[in-house]
Amino acid sequence: MFKDSDFKTSPDVPGPTKEEIRCLVICKSNVKKDDIVVEIGCGTGGLTLEFAKRSKQVYSTDKNPEAVKITRQNLLEQELLDNVNLYEEDALKLLESAPKFDILMVGGSGGDLYPIIEKASTKLNPGGRIIVTAILMETKTQSISKLKELGFIVEIIEVNISKGRIIDRGTMMFSQNPIAIIYTI
Amino acid sequence: MFKDSDFKTSPDVPGPTKEEIRCLVICKSNVKKDDIVVEIGCGTGGLTLEFAKRSKQVYSTDKNPEAVKITRQNLLEQELLDNVNLYEEDALKLLESAPKFDILMVGGSGGDLYPIIEKASTKLNPGGRIIVTAILMETKTQSISKLKELGFIVEIIEVNISKGRIIDRGTMMFSQNPIAIIYTI
Amino acid sequence: MFKDSDFKTSPDVPGPTKEEIRCLVICKSNVKKDDIVVEIGCGTGGLTLEFAKRSKQVYSTDKNPEAVKITRQNLLEQELLDNVNLYEEDALKLLESAPKFDILMVGGSGGDLYPIIEKASTKLNPGGRIIVTAILMETKTQSISKLKELGFIVEIIEVNISKGRIIDRGTMMFSQNPIAIIYTI
Amino acid sequence: MFKDSDFKTSPDVPGPTKEEIRCLVICKSNVKKDDIVVEIGCGTGGLTLEFAKRSKQVYSTDKNPEAVKITRQNLLEQELLDNVNLYEEDALKLLESAPKFDILMVGGSGGDLYPIIEKASTKLNPGGRIIVTAILMETKTQSISKLKELGFIVEIIEVNISKGRIIDRGTMMFSQNPIAIIYTI
Repeated sequence: MFKDSDFKTSPDVPGPTKEEIRCLVICKSNVKKDDIVVEIGCGTGGLTLEFAKRSKQVYSTDKNPEAVKITRQNLLEQELLDNVNLYEEDALKLLESAPKFDILMVGGSGGDLYPIIEKASTKLNPGGRIIVTAILMETKTQSISKLKELGFIVEIIEVNISKGRIIDRGTMMFSQNPIAIIYTI
Repeated sequence: MFKDSDFKTSPDVPGPTKEEIRCLVICKSNVKKDDIVVEIGCGTGGLTLEFAKRSKQVYSTDKNPEAVKITRQNLLEQELLDNVNLYEEDALKLLESAPKFDILMVGGSGGDLYPIIEKASTKLNPGGRIIVTAILMETKTQSISKLKELGFIVEIIEVNISKGRIIDRGTMMFSQNPIAIIYTI
Repeated sequence: MFKDSDFKTSPDVPGPTKEEIRCLVICKSNVKKDDIVVEIGCGTGGLTLEFAKRSKQVYSTDKNPEAVKITRQNLLEQELLDNVNLYEEDALKLLESAPKFDILMVGGSGGDLYPIIEKASTKLNPGGRIIVTAILMETKTQSISKLKELGFIVEIIEVNISKGRIIDRGTMMFSQNPIAIIYTI
Repeated sequence: MFKDSDFKTSPDVPGPTKEEIRCLVICKSNVKKDDIVVEIGCGTGGLTLEFAKRSKQVYSTDKNPEAVKITRQNLLEQELLDNVNLYEEDALKLLESAPKFDILMVGGSGGDLYPIIEKASTKLNPGGRIIVTAILMETKTQSISKLKELGFIVEIIEVNISKGRIIDRGTMMFSQNPIAIIYTI
């Protein structure tokens, strides 16, 4: 895994997804060397880089030009740009134009969660998986209900991690905000 | 319960203890109208005020003059100063000079946790209780081991609370840092 | 607070609501001595007893006859039955027949969450509050959206508590399942 | 990652370490194909199998013969036995006899945490790492203090994961017990 501090960040772009969450997403995604990954909402590029390192090709988009820019910088710095096609366009357009894929990674849906999942479900290769990381409560319930409706077997974990700061007086724990990972199996 | 926003704060003083934690401490303390409470480490006065509202008298100290000052202001504002004797002295000195008491509340021990608990155990009225709030991992294990050693029945809960921010797009949860409450029964 | 072990339980009835959650619900409810409380879904009676002890009158119902039975037993045992009118009827019927009230406590809605909240909102005294405890993710988002729609100011906390078992080798923490408390202010 | 259900279990042996924790341990361990791993306390073999799949050789021991037996069965079933030397002996003896190694994984220390870490620190290859999973509060503070004393840079995360059960009425979350991962970097 990359360290959180490996990433350049921008004040206008959320992320990067914390190391521990990236680790769990990668485990749950079961990504393999010849997988095609489509990512909606790259943010700072945290998951983009992790998938790029472990798959054949990543197609990633974000509506926020600043997000695309910072993700490109992070990919460049880690020499992973060759593996990634970066777009600054509508998620549904990318899902239309992209080849069939093995993994859909939704890091942010810009209010289009339902059509994104519906469209993606028609372009998944056999054995393909859909993963959503959710910080909004509503994204959790909507992902589950739409994926169930489409016939997927869905699981969800909610992750609360706190990290120690080891000081002279002892060890203080600092919480990361809770995040849910919804994934099909 | 007071709201977190009811308290004046100082950049040099930790606290106030979050509303939900104050609520749980008060429940676990089983404080009653004619109880005497001794508090070590008043910080911003969060628990000082809650105990003052529900007991006969609170004796409270903090090594940090700024903490005593801000606690005094908060007590004044809520008209609870009559119920509280505030000190800016060593915890052990206060435990020596205070009358016998029903509740020891340790919010911060300044490195003297063992002698504080030992001394307090000799001045507890029958049925008295000791409560420690701990953000340092070491405070948790030390409180438990010392209280067990002195023959108390000890319990501990670790509390992770996240609070929603309800925005247009949905509900985002923000974590408070974990805190443990160690208490005798 | 009552201890969890103070309650008789039934294998067919969920609950009692854990002590720490009862404590937080009572704090958030801001219940006062002359409040009228209506409770939907009494379960084992955990919250019924806590409200009975602190209010003027509780009107409580549960669709499950076994729940009403065990709640009655627990009320009897703690000598709180005088304060409680127990029903085994539809929530909406109770909300229709009950007098105006100060607190609506929803512990279980049997699928009628929206009409329960809507009906209750027409019978709340000025300054009245609505509280929902939710273990289903969908109950959280639905409570928030309906309460917002009706113009309430809503807050939500998600509570993760683990409790220590202090054994010879050390202190093991055991998690309670997460529960959310949604409340109006 | 293996699924939790991939493992045979024994009523007399704790584990397997939950999938999400195995995932985080593997990430934090930074295990590589030619690493030598020594594991103290294999339990059901959860982490033994994960390390066996990703390293050159694992040396693993457990004082409990039943643990060694069930770990062997799980290794056999996943065809990973060739990669693992299994022992039923004292941790310190194994640390004495094992070759120099890259990763020490402590899943259970049987009360010998300090000497285990001390001994291991003398046999770590350059760049080697020590990882402790802790469910006892005391194990957390002891690991940190001993590793700091020996000059390691130590980090700790505390992990609270809840997993959804998606039923007709909605999604219920069930908590796993909290577990800490202490690791050197």
